[in-house]
Amino acid sequence: MGKVLMKGNEAIGEAAIMAGCLNYFAYPITPQSEVAEYLVKRMPEVGGVFLQGESEVAVGYMIYGASGCGERVFTTSSSPGISLMSEAISYIAAAQCPAVFVNIVRGGPGLGGILPSQADYFQATKGGGHGDYRLLVLAPASVQEAVEMVMMAFPLAEKYRNPVMIMGDGLIGQMMEPVEFPEHLKSEASNKDDWASNGMDTRKSDTRNLVKSLFLDPEALNQNNLTLKAKYDRMKEEEVRYEAYNVDSDYQMLIVSYGTMSRVCRTAIDQLKEEGIEIGMIRPQTLFPFPLEAIREAAVKESCKRVFSIEMSMGQMVEDVERSVLGKRPVEWFGKCGGDIPTPEEIINFIKSRV
Amino acid sequence: MGKVLMKGNEAIGEAAIMAGCLNYFAYPITPQSEVAEYLVKRMPEVGGVFLQGESEVAVGYMIYGASGCGERVFTTSSSPGISLMSEAISYIAAAQCPAVFVNIVRGGPGLGGILPSQADYFQATKGGGHGDYRLLVLAPASVQEAVEMVMMAFPLAEKYRNPVMIMGDGLIGQMMEPVEFPEHLKSEASNKDDWASNGMDTRKSDTRNLVKSLFLDPEALNQNNLTLKAKYDRMKEEEVRYEAYNVDSDYQMLIVSYGTMSRVCRTAIDQLKEEGIEIGMIRPQTLFPFPLEAIREAAVKESCKRVFSIEMSMGQMVEDVERSVLGKRPVEWFGKCGGDIPTPEEIINFIKSRV
Amino acid sequence: MGKVLMKGNEAIGEAAIMAGCLNYFAYPITPQSEVAEYLVKRMPEVGGVFLQGESEVAVGYMIYGASGCGERVFTTSSSPGISLMSEAISYIAAAQCPAVFVNIVRGGPGLGGILPSQADYFQATKGGGHGDYRLLVLAPASVQEAVEMVMMAFPLAEKYRNPVMIMGDGLIGQMMEPVEFPEHLKSEASNKDDWASNGMDTRKSDTRNLVKSLFLDPEALNQNNLTLKAKYDRMKEEEVRYEAYNVDSDYQMLIVSYGTMSRVCRTAIDQLKEEGIEIGMIRPQTLFPFPLEAIREAAVKESCKRVFSIEMSMGQMVEDVERSVLGKRPVEWFGKCGGDIPTPEEIINFIKSRV
Amino acid sequence: MGKVLMKGNEAIGEAAIMAGCLNYFAYPITPQSEVAEYLVKRMPEVGGVFLQGESEVAVGYMIYGASGCGERVFTTSSSPGISLMSEAISYIAAAQCPAVFVNIVRGGPGLGGILPSQADYFQATKGGGHGDYRLLVLAPASVQEAVEMVMMAFPLAEKYRNPVMIMGDGLIGQMMEPVEFPEHLKSEASNKDDWASNGMDTRKSDTRNLVKSLFLDPEALNQNNLTLKAKYDRMKEEEVRYEAYNVDSDYQMLIVSYGTMSRVCRTAIDQLKEEGIEIGMIRPQTLFPFPLEAIREAAVKESCKRVFSIEMSMGQMVEDVERSVLGKRPVEWFGKCGGDIPTPEEIINFIKSRV
Repeated sequence: MGKVLMKGNEAIGEAAIMAGCLNYFAYPITPQSEVAEYLVKRMPEVGGVFLQGESEVAVGYMIYGASGCGERVFTTSSSPGISLMSEAISYIAAAQCPAVFVNIVRGGPGLGGILPSQADYFQATKGGGHGDYRLLVLAPASVQEAVEMVMMAFPLAEKYRNPVMIMGDGLIGQMMEPVEFPEHLKSEASNKDDWASNGMDTRKSDTRNLVKSLFLDPEALNQNNLTLKAKYDRMKEEEVRYEAYNVDSDYQMLIVSYGTMSRVCRTAIDQLKEEGIEIGMIRPQTLFPFPLEAIREAAVKESCKRVFSIEMSMGQMVEDVERSVLGKRPVEWFGKCGGDIPTPEEIINFIKSRV
Repeated sequence: MGKVLMKGNEAIGEAAIMAGCLNYFAYPITPQSEVAEYLVKRMPEVGGVFLQGESEVAVGYMIYGASGCGERVFTTSSSPGISLMSEAISYIAAAQCPAVFVNIVRGGPGLGGILPSQADYFQATKGGGHGDYRLLVLAPASVQEAVEMVMMAFPLAEKYRNPVMIMGDGLIGQMMEPVEFPEHLKSEASNKDDWASNGMDTRKSDTRNLVKSLFLDPEALNQNNLTLKAKYDRMKEEEVRYEAYNVDSDYQMLIVSYGTMSRVCRTAIDQLKEEGIEIGMIRPQTLFPFPLEAIREAAVKESCKRVFSIEMSMGQMVEDVERSVLGKRPVEWFGKCGGDIPTPEEIINFIKSRV
Repeated sequence: MGKVLMKGNEAIGEAAIMAGCLNYFAYPITPQSEVAEYLVKRMPEVGGVFLQGESEVAVGYMIYGASGCGERVFTTSSSPGISLMSEAISYIAAAQCPAVFVNIVRGGPGLGGILPSQADYFQATKGGGHGDYRLLVLAPASVQEAVEMVMMAFPLAEKYRNPVMIMGDGLIGQMMEPVEFPEHLKSEASNKDDWASNGMDTRKSDTRNLVKSLFLDPEALNQNNLTLKAKYDRMKEEEVRYEAYNVDSDYQMLIVSYGTMSRVCRTAIDQLKEEGIEIGMIRPQTLFPFPLEAIREAAVKESCKRVFSIEMSMGQMVEDVERSVLGKRPVEWFGKCGGDIPTPEEIINFIKSRV
Repeated sequence: MGKVLMKGNEAIGEAAIMAGCLNYFAYPITPQSEVAEYLVKRMPEVGGVFLQGESEVAVGYMIYGASGCGERVFTTSSSPGISLMSEAISYIAAAQCPAVFVNIVRGGPGLGGILPSQADYFQATKGGGHGDYRLLVLAPASVQEAVEMVMMAFPLAEKYRNPVMIMGDGLIGQMMEPVEFPEHLKSEASNKDDWASNGMDTRKSDTRNLVKSLFLDPEALNQNNLTLKAKYDRMKEEEVRYEAYNVDSDYQMLIVSYGTMSRVCRTAIDQLKEEGIEIGMIRPQTLFPFPLEAIREAAVKESCKRVFSIEMSMGQMVEDVERSVLGKRPVEWFGKCGGDIPTPEEIINFIKSRV
């Protein structure tokens, strides 16, 4: 299968199918409804299931159910919808079930707007739900990368038996780009017979699997939390992904930016380069685990005077950038939130003002 | 009214009434159900309203409704229940309505357990819901402090037109202590006629107030977010509260700890002092805004070699402690999560192991 | 209190208050929403409670709850809303709790229309819900009669410990007429301490009352049903109400008609009398118990050749008229359903066509 | 396919599949849960869909949705569950959609019990929901007949574009009998392109079908009701089914009885015959339309002195029997309700007492 021109939301839907996920439960909300529109037709063609829940609360628990039975399953939603799934996500993480959540972020808080935003960074990376859990959070910067991250998300979720979140934004969802679905990212669902509640098929297993998040005994709960913590520590070691840009130059300043926002930053960096101003960039591809060390290392380069966290949110990732830089360079936030993406010119002006 | 011996959950209920809040909407969940049990009897006696919603999702929106009409209103819940309110909390913050949420945290994630925990630190301080918003988060360490914080919470919520969260834990809720309800913390509800949707009483106002969180125009949404950001920045300047303990000594190490956990730490510090080991402590009373500077200042004292974030969670506040200390001292997490509160001995052993 | 000009829906609300009912739970639906609009303001003035449920299903069970606690309680709704309460009504009847339901019938089935109709006759009289139960069904033909029936409904419900339904129609609800609230219809709630689950106040009762509809033992269930049957038989003996019109004449035909429809029939009868055609009418005021004998007796008068069931439904009451007349005279249905009430002329034409 | 020994509930499930119905939506409730248990496994094997709704209210509307799209669809439930579907059933009838509802009746009202009953006769035949509509109601007396009625129900529902209800009881559902699935009852779904909202496939139709129950214009609503009435009148002419037993004898009394109850009556009749007492029986197989004329005719046989309506309910069908006999013979009810089915001896004793 060669390159096809597809809308981001449709490519996300197709990528899940390519990844062997035949269960999609969702509730429509702008700007991700096209995923549902695409899959309501496509799932039956491939023998898959599309179920619209009666609410996002329900969808969250439908995901839990399918996942707990050992099925590959995913949903897509947008900001308020993800909030409604918060309790279920916490349950799924606690019960150590793999599942994939795609958040095509819109402007918030509240109803907010329907244009692109990155304002759910905290919710995605620090946990919207209660309790000690983490999501593995992937942030694509193009439709192609969204496709690849969706395809990677399922085996990653299974590797860690943990929910994985793809945090996109309305722009990724709405724009059309040529994409391909890499063969090498196709994967087999891992063997789930040792934990999934898949019907006690005695041909498959002779033990009774129990999927649950209730641990009334404090020691058992502590133990479950330690198991989770060990997984998150392992993620920090094995799953950090980022892209460095123009870091071979003697950059005066370092940008940290992700997703759609990073593409605008790249344009700004290119234009500044022509003017003789060198700017480096680290683009986190995983928001959790966060590339703390890569950023720290890049920040302390001698030529580098300042670090900027450029976000389509009012200062969220900047806290993780501060934790990365650890005071060795001044860290500043620049951004906008509401749907108007900062332009290259606005970024250039901001950077020049900080020279 | 002098001192009375009261259970924490009951004292919280009474404190809200003392603060002039006559609207309480809730859904029962261990370990906060006693607040509802207390108020279902008490509210009618004072002419107030207790409504049990059909779910926590509903309660969240009932709070939004009452608050948007200019009424003092509060709820109490515990971890999973707060997750279900996440969307509503985001709406309330977006619409700039004052309201008070009490979270008597239990062990999580998922159903978890029903014993004390602090595992909702991230959810409370970074936002469980979607979008750029913050809660003002107060963390009491005793029943008396819970009473005072509840009484302060209402005028604070009105000062900022923002939800305030009291983050307690099951121990605070269940234990009995003598309390008093300070006269000076009683307050009048502030005038809400300039923004609340209170029926267009022409004797009160001649403009039509619209309470909403939908801003389809990106510039309007950006503007709303800037207004919110300005409020949160103002909170950082005006509302940081913390308690310092044993910081006049030449402490070798600094503990950061809050709530019930900090009381155990205090016992450990006292015992270590007798052994000649000096340990300082900063106890954040506000978790947002976080006492970044107080901690940084205390951490860099020459005698101080290390900083510990001691939590009943698996490493959450430690991220804010790292942002405080900024690499000037090693920061380490110590904690437990599941219901068994670390004992003074466990803390002493840990500290000695780090000398 | 003398006569006041009131809209039917408002008069119904006030009548309930006059009857000493201070609990009103409802969900808005045209054409009864004015009852809710009236009572949302009026209930607080008299110290009563108005609660809007989250759905009619919920309202039904809120009624059950309050009633089971021994409170006078009522609701108003319209056709689809009553369908949603069907299960709860069956529970309330099974548990022998008094409660008053007002159905301002609109055209059905399905969403139908919002204009007057009598199409819920079967649902009201044969039981919309499952199982062997009956409602005592009152059908007013004027706003004044609606007021009186609402005031009577509460003591009747308590006399039989059974739900009472007032079956009105959109016209009764919407039209304005001068009404008075008869002093003699005011009533005290009967003593419920011997059956209501009202908190085991030991000053009131020393036995534990259990309100329930579950009887797993078949003999206990049969016994409960026999008790219910005995009550319904007693209603048939003691509660049959009807109005006879022009039955002293040597009428050639007999009309059976109720509610708003009967007023049109009366006009037609008056006009036909002027033309020398005598028509009698029996107007059931109770639809259950149905005035079987009064109709039979009136039908067999020698001058009477035919009996008509004239309804704003497609032939429902006609079945009960057939059961009354028992083949001694031909029984025919005439009616219309959809909102257009048959006019006097249409009735006159129909009658003339049957001479 | 020859005879197979099957439990009634399972046979009902298999019969629907044999009838070509591949959509089954349901919510579990005793005593019909085995249908769901059977179909949750069986539907996937035949490429069908089993969906458990979140409540019976939801199931009712899922049925409406599938039916409105032109799919063969059915559900099974028991008494309280059917009450919760009342509103949806009214909508489906109003919108003239075919669908099959199976009610495995349990004792009521309210929660009642879980043993066999016929107490939903009124609900099924007079309409549980609001408005002028009727269900075609079939009442099987054996597992084999249940199979056949389920298989007939789908083409009947399509012939009339109206919901069909199978009214069974717990005994039919629970007992095992050898059954076969007659080839001649297999049917093709009728062409629904002229009315179903099936996606405007221009290969299938070039008009836009609208499935709805809202008719705000009173004349349109009246017209819809007249269309419905015409269908119900046609049912009365074409669909009346009943079985006569021992009517060639000079029976002294006539029993009217249906379903499981009629089998006990048959045993009683056989035993009485041995004693020289002749009793006839008419067993309605359709409860709506009701075999009024067959009963009337059988009742007026010269030898016949009395007519009995023998029911597992407290006197429901007896009203229709009265409408049949029209006073030409005394009509009496005999029955029991709660789960204990009257024994042959009890029936014999009752009959002897009435000689």
